[in-house]
Amino acid sequence: MITRFITRPLIKIYSHMEESIKFRTGLFINNTLTHKKEEFIPIQGKTVKWYICGPTVYDSSHLGHARAYVTFDYMRRIMEQYFGYDVRFATNITDIDDKIIQRSNELKEDFSTFARRWELDYLEDMAKLNIKPATQFTRVSENIPEIIKFIQKIKDNGFAYEVNSSVYFDIEKYKAAGHLYGKLEPNASKSLELLEEGEGALSKGVETEKKCKADFALWKKSKEGEPKWESPWGMGRPGWHIECSTVIDVDFAKAPIDMHSGGIDLKFPHHENEIAQSEAFYNTKDWCRVFLHTGHLEIDGKKMSKSLKNFTTIKEILKHYEGVHLRYLFLLHRWDTTFNYVTSALEEAVAKHKQFSEFLLNYQVIQRSTGINRLQKFITKDFDLENALSDSKEKIHAALCDNFDTPKTLDLLSALVIKANAYMSNNTDIKVHLLQSVASYVEHILDSFGCILPLKQQDSELTSALLNVICEFRTQVKANAADKAALFKLCDQIRDTTLPEVGVRIEDTGKSCIWKIVGKEEAKKAVEEPKKDKAKAVKEVVLAAEFFLRQTEKYSKFDTDGVPTHDIKGKELSEEQRNGLKKKMKSLKEKEAKKKSS
Amino acid sequence: MITRFITRPLIKIYSHMEESIKFRTGLFINNTLTHKKEEFIPIQGKTVKWYICGPTVYDSSHLGHARAYVTFDYMRRIMEQYFGYDVRFATNITDIDDKIIQRSNELKEDFSTFARRWELDYLEDMAKLNIKPATQFTRVSENIPEIIKFIQKIKDNGFAYEVNSSVYFDIEKYKAAGHLYGKLEPNASKSLELLEEGEGALSKGVETEKKCKADFALWKKSKEGEPKWESPWGMGRPGWHIECSTVIDVDFAKAPIDMHSGGIDLKFPHHENEIAQSEAFYNTKDWCRVFLHTGHLEIDGKKMSKSLKNFTTIKEILKHYEGVHLRYLFLLHRWDTTFNYVTSALEEAVAKHKQFSEFLLNYQVIQRSTGINRLQKFITKDFDLENALSDSKEKIHAALCDNFDTPKTLDLLSALVIKANAYMSNNTDIKVHLLQSVASYVEHILDSFGCILPLKQQDSELTSALLNVICEFRTQVKANAADKAALFKLCDQIRDTTLPEVGVRIEDTGKSCIWKIVGKEEAKKAVEEPKKDKAKAVKEVVLAAEFFLRQTEKYSKFDTDGVPTHDIKGKELSEEQRNGLKKKMKSLKEKEAKKKSS
Repeated sequence: MITRFITRPLIKIYSHMEESIKFRTGLFINNTLTHKKEEFIPIQGKTVKWYICGPTVYDSSHLGHARAYVTFDYMRRIMEQYFGYDVRFATNITDIDDKIIQRSNELKEDFSTFARRWELDYLEDMAKLNIKPATQFTRVSENIPEIIKFIQKIKDNGFAYEVNSSVYFDIEKYKAAGHLYGKLEPNASKSLELLEEGEGALSKGVETEKKCKADFALWKKSKEGEPKWESPWGMGRPGWHIECSTVIDVDFAKAPIDMHSGGIDLKFPHHENEIAQSEAFYNTKDWCRVFLHTGHLEIDGKKMSKSLKNFTTIKEILKHYEGVHLRYLFLLHRWDTTFNYVTSALEEAVAKHKQFSEFLLNYQVIQRSTGINRLQKFITKDFDLENALSDSKEKIHAALCDNFDTPKTLDLLSALVIKANAYMSNNTDIKVHLLQSVASYVEHILDSFGCILPLKQQDSELTSALLNVICEFRTQVKANAADKAALFKLCDQIRDTTLPEVGVRIEDTGKSCIWKIVGKEEAKKAVEEPKKDKAKAVKEVVLAAEFFLRQTEKYSKFDTDGVPTHDIKGKELSEEQRNGLKKKMKSLKEKEAKKKSS
Repeated sequence: MITRFITRPLIKIYSHMEESIKFRTGLFINNTLTHKKEEFIPIQGKTVKWYICGPTVYDSSHLGHARAYVTFDYMRRIMEQYFGYDVRFATNITDIDDKIIQRSNELKEDFSTFARRWELDYLEDMAKLNIKPATQFTRVSENIPEIIKFIQKIKDNGFAYEVNSSVYFDIEKYKAAGHLYGKLEPNASKSLELLEEGEGALSKGVETEKKCKADFALWKKSKEGEPKWESPWGMGRPGWHIECSTVIDVDFAKAPIDMHSGGIDLKFPHHENEIAQSEAFYNTKDWCRVFLHTGHLEIDGKKMSKSLKNFTTIKEILKHYEGVHLRYLFLLHRWDTTFNYVTSALEEAVAKHKQFSEFLLNYQVIQRSTGINRLQKFITKDFDLENALSDSKEKIHAALCDNFDTPKTLDLLSALVIKANAYMSNNTDIKVHLLQSVASYVEHILDSFGCILPLKQQDSELTSALLNVICEFRTQVKANAADKAALFKLCDQIRDTTLPEVGVRIEDTGKSCIWKIVGKEEAKKAVEEPKKDKAKAVKEVVLAAEFFLRQTEKYSKFDTDGVPTHDIKGKELSEEQRNGLKKKMKSLKEKEAKKKSS
């Protein structure tokens, strides 16, 4: 059954801008708070106040982080670029935490230097994954006075108590006041193991201070060697959950907010406790309207864990793949279901990316070479493609409205591209304007998914890099104008370090030099190992639907399924020949489907 | 009073894709057919079947053409990129027409070669104005058999008659069947002068063939020296209006279509007669839902005409201005009202374009140079800018919903940019992620208006050029390594000649330098006319709100209105000083308002 949008009836023309009006696009989202898929309607106008838990910075980000951040990034882009919401996206960096203290102490490194180092590492990964930075971005350490005030108010409201210079949240009082503890996790109070884990490794042994086992720390007394701040309860530091509740209040100032999100592992106890704190702080039962949690991530059918040695970091994967491949990996699976990562899934992502970028590149070639001198009146095949485009637009709109169904969207987009490829392959009578409409739509959707075309992005980056090189070079030449040796060194440096770093290879040819854009790896290799063999070709996965379309040395025309109809000389194939090819295609598709489901 | 949209209530989840559902965005459009501003709702899903009359190709396109084509281009982009409609945009080229025949005969040139030459001229102009090509684009000459069939059916339906190998539309029969002749122009039947003009210069003398003066030609008997095609009524050629009715049928196959558009001069008799023909053909009273007509264009208060010698071609204007300036010219005025063109209006357009592109360039400089090492927690001025952004988004949405109010949108966008400039000018504590949100929104709206930033387009070329610069520079530095003076000369040359030639402006800032991609003209100008004369040469219109913000040599901080609060040394201004400056600002704004309304 397909979630299909939307009537938007009862138009009213308002004379007062102040009047509160609802912005409805027909988008339905799976809301973990209400445990159902429901229509999303912002609280105020088109504005979406959305908070996403940032990382605790003490180690490299892994595939689980990648899934959460990529997912919420493409959702945000779809909401902004496709649906037209005004998303106010806020996040934090948890730079005070038990794990940070432990690790930095082990390394005898100042805890804040340590945290800032891993923050940079995280931001580097995010940039490589093309994650759009949050509009509001702040660190827990920048918000200590606000955290203390937040705790004080919870205490004043009667939902917290102080013991031995620590402050705990009082679950029983909270429940007694009519709040529900367990909005996200119905078994909340009983999940003591998770609750304890959430309290942090350094809190072992203080359980006896609590009135009730489910109570959790808002403020922790600091021991020797732990960072500490002054507070009404003595020197200490904030608990984990209170950090996010406070930052959200700093960011958005009042309840309710529209959306809150994170990986599924944050659902309990972290988000459950955030809800408790914020409801206690605002004295409300309506703090946040929608919670989003990405599904579990498994590796080869098992939970990712360090003990299983299947803990894969983003950096590890980016050694062999591009950021955009990881993005397709997640786009190809529904965001809120368990995702079992197997290596072949990444190969599928690579193939999908290649399918789209090849199409757009081929379109560009046609656009450069095909004029409109010939007959421009549409004939059947033109109408077929135009109708396929309109049909894709309607169906993709319905898929995106249905809880961001990106895998379905990519399937539909693939089918459209296959049709457009077939259209291009009969390269007499191409209507280039029609093809432009298809290409610009494909580009629009991919752009809304954050799968920016490498060409454009790399171009701008490269341009910036080159201009920086020129500016720096000019400056250095002026500064060293009296030192011949230094100038020659500068010139070598540009050839051997600066430009390879941006993917450009310089070759000195006697009196002058030439350049080639070859990519970073290639350019560096050229300096390190002058004449070694090129890297092995990437093993390419050919989609069944494209199997024949690529055999342009054998066939000249194809039907809409991509099965050949004419040989290379333009002769129509016999019924028998075509049936043979159809059989082959069918068997390829079956193999593909089998591989996909396994 | 502001047209404010929209509640979109009564969500329904359909299990059948087939069910007909309305796509409503809250967009209201001035519909010339119903003579009122009304909500636009596509007939089917998100699809908008839209036809726009292309040109009769016999001369250069003029400012009136520019207005119509630019207007419908930005409307189309807004509908596609901003509102998310699926626009099926179709157009034609009128390459058979009395004027074409006359002119080509005068030149003793084959009429179709002649027409194709002017078609190319027109397409060249459109490309320079960044008009997105229609998905469907066909020539009248490609549709002769369809035109004959179309006329035959009108005749079969009883609404046309043959006289002396010509066929005429029968207005009286049409009216008698209950159709309204005069849907667009209530005085239709009485406007005989315009009707006659519409019949073409070569039809003089055949009026007596008609049953009624208001009848118009569907098929014209060809005389000696006129192009001709075989038909059931003898050798002849199509009338003007029938061409569009037929092409629309070829493009969209059935009535009704969603939209039809053209300049106001096409409203009567051309569009009126198209309605009559198509209603007669389909036997319907519901052929096209919305007609759009751009307002009149006057030059210095007078109608544009060749006899007044105020007939300005697009090419003439593009000698002195860029395509994007013409686009802003029209965006700065409501599309459906009379536009009185005065030269200063173009200067205003230049200033507006400059304001936005400078903002985006300055943002890019900040983005390259500003990290996030400092405190990232939002303080009041950050929240102010974020709120200004949200507020602009709401108001711009309302303006675009209100019959494409682009002048208001640009005013609101300007106000936002002024605030962002003030924010950037206090360059301690800039939150670069927040600024990115503002810049990307400004870019999104300008992109929806077709005011593409040159950056993206020129990137690839630029990359090559820059790499050439680096190679050449390296070579020269090596060759001149012993000659200090020569090296300095080289550095100046790169700043003053090489890089301006590729559109890059280098600004030396003491010990280092920064770069801006500004386009060739601008970069060269910056070198040729050093600081003082610059203002004169460009004759820039400084907006009152920016008057002080530009005086960065005098003031260092400003309030949100752009009034200085601190002098260049960082000292706060006195109450008295600030009041003086506020007075000055007030008087400037009053002058500005006066000038605008006059």
